[in-house]
Amino acid sequence: RRSHMTVSYTDPQVSMDLLRAVLQPSFNDDIMAVFRKYQKFFEKAAENVKENVGDEVQTDQLIKETCRNVLEHAKQLFPDVEGKKVGPEVAIKRSRPVDDDCS
Amino acid sequence: RRSHMTVSYTDPQVSMDLLRAVLQPSFNDDIMAVFRKYQKFFEKAAENVKENVGDEVQTDQLIKETCRNVLEHAKQLFPDVEGKKVGPEVAIKRSRPVDDDCS
Repeated sequence: RRSHMTVSYTDPQVSMDLLRAVLQPSFNDDIMAVFRKYQKFFEKAAENVKENVGDEVQTDQLIKETCRNVLEHAKQLFPDVEGKKVGPEVAIKRSRPVDDDCS
Repeated sequence: RRSHMTVSYTDPQVSMDLLRAVLQPSFNDDIMAVFRKYQKFFEKAAENVKENVGDEVQTDQLIKETCRNVLEHAKQLFPDVEGKKVGPEVAIKRSRPVDDDCS
């Protein structure tokens, strides 16, 4: 993506993205540290799924996808529009109750 | 997307997503704490951009977009493919290479 980007140093988002790129490795370390806190929950859940569904379940891929979903949902911390606090994401929020059947 | 999802409690990703939803608020707190560490850099950069580009720049929106980009790039911590042993998900995988353009 970046290689196709027209480099304009007056494009506000380009300037910000330069800073982002510089900080990203440090961010990644910090974010990874956060995920390590929750790693055991994900591992346990993935093992449960594998027991229930079958050995074809690839627990590592399942965990990675879940981690990516966490990051995707965390974007709601920084909603695009002010006023419409959370963005379009609200519409695709699940309607079924989040009961704790995974505990 | 999710609203069209057939709710199947044997769908591995659905089970994992229940756990994700339970943990998300706690994740969000931790991720927010990480971002607070870098907030001053983003604010300074956004102020610079505003000075250089003009007053129509909305620094808060600029910062939020940058934060969302940080999260998007952090997904590369959890890459989709490992020798391509993933199932149907492969088809909708992004095609651009997961290179660390953030380093």
